[in-house]
Amino acid sequence: MDSAPNNSSLIDRIAAGDTRAVARAISKVEDFSADAAALMKQIFPLTGRGLVIGITGAPGAGKSSLVDKLALHYRRAGERVGIVAVDPSSPFSGGAILGDRIRMQTLGLDPGVFIRSMATRGNLGGLARSTVDAVSILDAAGYHKIIIETVGVGQDEVEVVKAADVCVVVLVPGMGDDIQAIKAGIMEIGDIFVINKADREGVNTTEKELEALLSLAMRDDLWESPIVKTVAPESKGIQELAAAIEKYREFHLTSKSGAGRRRAIARWRILELLRDRLVAQTLESESASEKLELLAGEVASRRRDPYSAVEELLGK
Amino acid sequence: MDSAPNNSSLIDRIAAGDTRAVARAISKVEDFSADAAALMKQIFPLTGRGLVIGITGAPGAGKSSLVDKLALHYRRAGERVGIVAVDPSSPFSGGAILGDRIRMQTLGLDPGVFIRSMATRGNLGGLARSTVDAVSILDAAGYHKIIIETVGVGQDEVEVVKAADVCVVVLVPGMGDDIQAIKAGIMEIGDIFVINKADREGVNTTEKELEALLSLAMRDDLWESPIVKTVAPESKGIQELAAAIEKYREFHLTSKSGAGRRRAIARWRILELLRDRLVAQTLESESASEKLELLAGEVASRRRDPYSAVEELLGK
Repeated sequence: MDSAPNNSSLIDRIAAGDTRAVARAISKVEDFSADAAALMKQIFPLTGRGLVIGITGAPGAGKSSLVDKLALHYRRAGERVGIVAVDPSSPFSGGAILGDRIRMQTLGLDPGVFIRSMATRGNLGGLARSTVDAVSILDAAGYHKIIIETVGVGQDEVEVVKAADVCVVVLVPGMGDDIQAIKAGIMEIGDIFVINKADREGVNTTEKELEALLSLAMRDDLWESPIVKTVAPESKGIQELAAAIEKYREFHLTSKSGAGRRRAIARWRILELLRDRLVAQTLESESASEKLELLAGEVASRRRDPYSAVEELLGK
Repeated sequence: MDSAPNNSSLIDRIAAGDTRAVARAISKVEDFSADAAALMKQIFPLTGRGLVIGITGAPGAGKSSLVDKLALHYRRAGERVGIVAVDPSSPFSGGAILGDRIRMQTLGLDPGVFIRSMATRGNLGGLARSTVDAVSILDAAGYHKIIIETVGVGQDEVEVVKAADVCVVVLVPGMGDDIQAIKAGIMEIGDIFVINKADREGVNTTEKELEALLSLAMRDDLWESPIVKTVAPESKGIQELAAAIEKYREFHLTSKSGAGRRRAIARWRILELLRDRLVAQTLESESASEKLELLAGEVASRRRDPYSAVEELLGK
């Protein structure tokens, strides 16, 4: 017998802001467990109150430190903050390696801050889906601000950040010669740009380059993405960043383009979930899992091509 | 009537190294068109001859320049080189923005080099799948070296690079304070480490840090990942890099762990394809696509949760 409480009492505890219930629910969506769907259906009506802030940028940009200071800023205003750190490392071996332990040093044991690192787990992947589900759970639990932090600028990471209400892109001065290419990719997703480590040499050049690029950006709304300069360890510029986020929130709520964006996010979210669900269904039986291993061996030794293997798995 | 030749003549032309046929086949797998499966089944038996080299690293590490110089090195030895650049930008709007045009300046119109940027396209996503399929097509077309270059260090990018025969991780001196976290993630995938821009300050510190991290790495084989220092624009270290790649190729072919890795790659490749196939099947009818749009609107306006939307799509 499973002595765990059923979903409805779990939902009640989440709605009451119980952090253990929140952690347990996030594990369920991460594992894509059998009752995750029922849970998320009950969670959904409780969401839509918190502000979801996506923070992305290249490795080395100092995102973690920036997120921590921003969280502290909100804590001082009496708000509860959830942080979901997407860890793209170790897709095969799984596991968020450093994140949580390091964070705990700065945000400590503050009960008003919930931190969770999300990593890929096994077959059913779905880092993007489990991350947005985790955000919904934190939203339902009454966290006022939910920050999604992504290490890296990969496809999944970008999509997750785009699912936020506000997307903050973090740069640093003098990032080298393929910064142009990166900027071209992230320019269209940044609602706010941060130049962190703004006490470093080259900050004016980076700012000018960024302004030039932003002047070419084709946004489908009238928002002009501001550039905020920060020095996270000294908390410089954090207040300005929070103000820019608040300003965008107001803009986003009232603009017509906000509706289009919410629709694109919803569409993406359905597709991610559909993908995970279909794969889980196909592989749920033990015999299907065994067949997968067998077919992997055949493809590895070139006795079979991957396309035929998939047809075999689908029973065609 | 479609005047295009059928797959079997396309296969013949690919096998003969016809670049237009190669380009056309890659477009088919990118679009996941109806005959992509039949095409790839015929391609597969022709593969396994070329060496697939994955090159990844943080933005700003100078990967493109390094790849170009490495390609030139192989060209001088009379080998044909295929380059597949994974462009994680613009998942919503699609499109590889800068890549190809910039590359053309250095590698020019050399018919022995084939360059293709891969980007996400619409619903059926599958950047990882289409990239490994493109690599197979280049392999079948007789390219001796196929280089996969990824901008960013995201989850998909890492997985694609892991599907290569040799994985090269590119770092630069003094990348800032969360380098530790990045290294922890990529340490286990790097067969060869490059410190590019090795004429810069801090190269010795970075090398020592990297050596320390590598000494802790738990590889499941006896390979000791070498560190190669390069200055790509001056072609410094390129010969050493090529030698390290060749050395790893010999090791990989003879080691027992190579088989385990090929199996993990095959398994991952089947799963990626399964995912794409299942989603394509579910959404192939016009009515399903319309339903998706309708449901996205309902989820966006919070009248429905994403989980119920997926069940509706699946006709449950």
